[in-house]
Amino acid sequence: MKFEYIKKNFENELNKVNEYIENNLKSDIDIINNISTYLISKSGKRIRPLINLIFSKMFNSFSEKNIIMSSAIELIHAATLLHDDVVDLSEKRRGKLTVNQVWGNKESILVGDYLYTKSFKMLVNINNLNILKLMSHVTNIMSEGEINQLINKKNININKSDYFKIVRCKTAELFGASSLSSAILAKRNKKELEMSYKFGLHFGLAYQLIDDILDYFTEDENFGKNICDDIFSGTITLPLINLLNNNTYAKKTVHDLLFNDKKTEFLKIKNLIINSNSLDKSFNLALYHIDKAKEALSVFNKCFYFEILINLINFTIDRKY
Amino acid sequence: MKFEYIKKNFENELNKVNEYIENNLKSDIDIINNISTYLISKSGKRIRPLINLIFSKMFNSFSEKNIIMSSAIELIHAATLLHDDVVDLSEKRRGKLTVNQVWGNKESILVGDYLYTKSFKMLVNINNLNILKLMSHVTNIMSEGEINQLINKKNININKSDYFKIVRCKTAELFGASSLSSAILAKRNKKELEMSYKFGLHFGLAYQLIDDILDYFTEDENFGKNICDDIFSGTITLPLINLLNNNTYAKKTVHDLLFNDKKTEFLKIKNLIINSNSLDKSFNLALYHIDKAKEALSVFNKCFYFEILINLINFTIDRKY
Repeated sequence: MKFEYIKKNFENELNKVNEYIENNLKSDIDIINNISTYLISKSGKRIRPLINLIFSKMFNSFSEKNIIMSSAIELIHAATLLHDDVVDLSEKRRGKLTVNQVWGNKESILVGDYLYTKSFKMLVNINNLNILKLMSHVTNIMSEGEINQLINKKNININKSDYFKIVRCKTAELFGASSLSSAILAKRNKKELEMSYKFGLHFGLAYQLIDDILDYFTEDENFGKNICDDIFSGTITLPLINLLNNNTYAKKTVHDLLFNDKKTEFLKIKNLIINSNSLDKSFNLALYHIDKAKEALSVFNKCFYFEILINLINFTIDRKY
Repeated sequence: MKFEYIKKNFENELNKVNEYIENNLKSDIDIINNISTYLISKSGKRIRPLINLIFSKMFNSFSEKNIIMSSAIELIHAATLLHDDVVDLSEKRRGKLTVNQVWGNKESILVGDYLYTKSFKMLVNINNLNILKLMSHVTNIMSEGEINQLINKKNININKSDYFKIVRCKTAELFGASSLSSAILAKRNKKELEMSYKFGLHFGLAYQLIDDILDYFTEDENFGKNICDDIFSGTITLPLINLLNNNTYAKKTVHDLLFNDKKTEFLKIKNLIINSNSLDKSFNLALYHIDKAKEALSVFNKCFYFEILINLINFTIDRKY
């Protein structure tokens, strides 16, 4: 099953999400329209909205509220990208120049704030305090994750537990909220709420682990970012943490890159990582979390949407090849 | 009546607000604690919380919800300051170095996001969808104001109507929400809701007008910011708009400062403004909005808190001298 097939199955719903976002971002201020259109273009993968939509169909509870929910989640994601790219001085995202490159850092900060607050305006329309509780909590945790990532920039000694905390906060919690919010709207029982959250959480962890692998591994233009963006911005991710473990030579090389500005060392580091078992270790961990996500589904009645969800997960892994 | 007297009358409530903020900002991440403590120090004027608290007393409806509301409003204000100072490259605020000067821009952006999202976490605890509707709307409008201010940087031809739109969005709407939210929590009737909002809105407009005057006028260290911060960051405010009207010489001088980097021209501009009727015009407009704010109170029963509110407003004007 291809990703396009999944999207095809949810074409109607995704079109409604796109429409809802478009209608709600229309502004008198041109730059808001221009940046929004550029950033939240229809070509986006919409993985988080898809999780919410598929769950709502699985619960047989799909409604307009899921359109709003999915739109708000996509906007929150977009807002974090805007601020993230300013903080990381990123140049490319989804194969295009980043907003901070095209419009500037100040514009990215303020339009990011606009999208954040707009997403809460949308969420209020769902008229459900539990949803607002969830989303204010998750966005707060996400910013904690971003701050933790920032203070651990260039921290060669960062441990796996700190790395996982960052990944959970900055990425996985929003995935978790994508499925959990569908369960909340469908008024499912406590166990089902828990398992909905777990599905998204583990999916999100796997997603970020794969993303961090791809940053070193791929030569594929489809990845859309500059290769080794992470290490150039000082972010130490799991493939590098795996490599650095008890490897003095690797530590020295990374130190030279990060602190003595020897930028050309990055090829050496990339090769060290590729020729070690660092990527395999990361990949196996991603597989572990994918299993956990699939496991979480077992509490629900088997249905057509199981297959869709599992294929959505598989698409994440397939990004590697 | 001095400002200290007003604060004294609300000492208990303000202490509770400080406590609530402090308890809710405690984090495992040191930098969040440090920046929060630095920015939201107890010495802050707390004008927005005071508006909310005084209104709640006037409505005889003060409760824990007003503590949460006031705290969230102060946090939203603090979050906008953090992002604002990054955008304006400001160096001083409240007589101290700005957070971006001490910790850095990246830290200011992300801790700003943390405070924004934390304030919504607080607001959810009030358990009132109308409050969340109001605050998501106001924060969204505030970010529109900031964006409008940014795109009008160095716009010598900005007109009064655009200036007022910016001032309303970035400042006055949060003042309006401070009083309106008390009325919502006190379940007042439609007319009273409207007049509560109007009080805050006009107060906020006057407040910002005075602030923009002070930026040119005062030599007073208590103002806490660098003199002429606005024009150096390219923000054209009403005193300057008044001056530039049909004044070719002034326009040329400002143009030289903004576009030909002739920084020393600022003294010339400052003197032109002080020696014209520009500040008086701004000040008279501030007085007009203060009258409007006082007028809005007439719908309520006269009580002790009227006097407090009027004195809070007068304190705003007195900042000039």
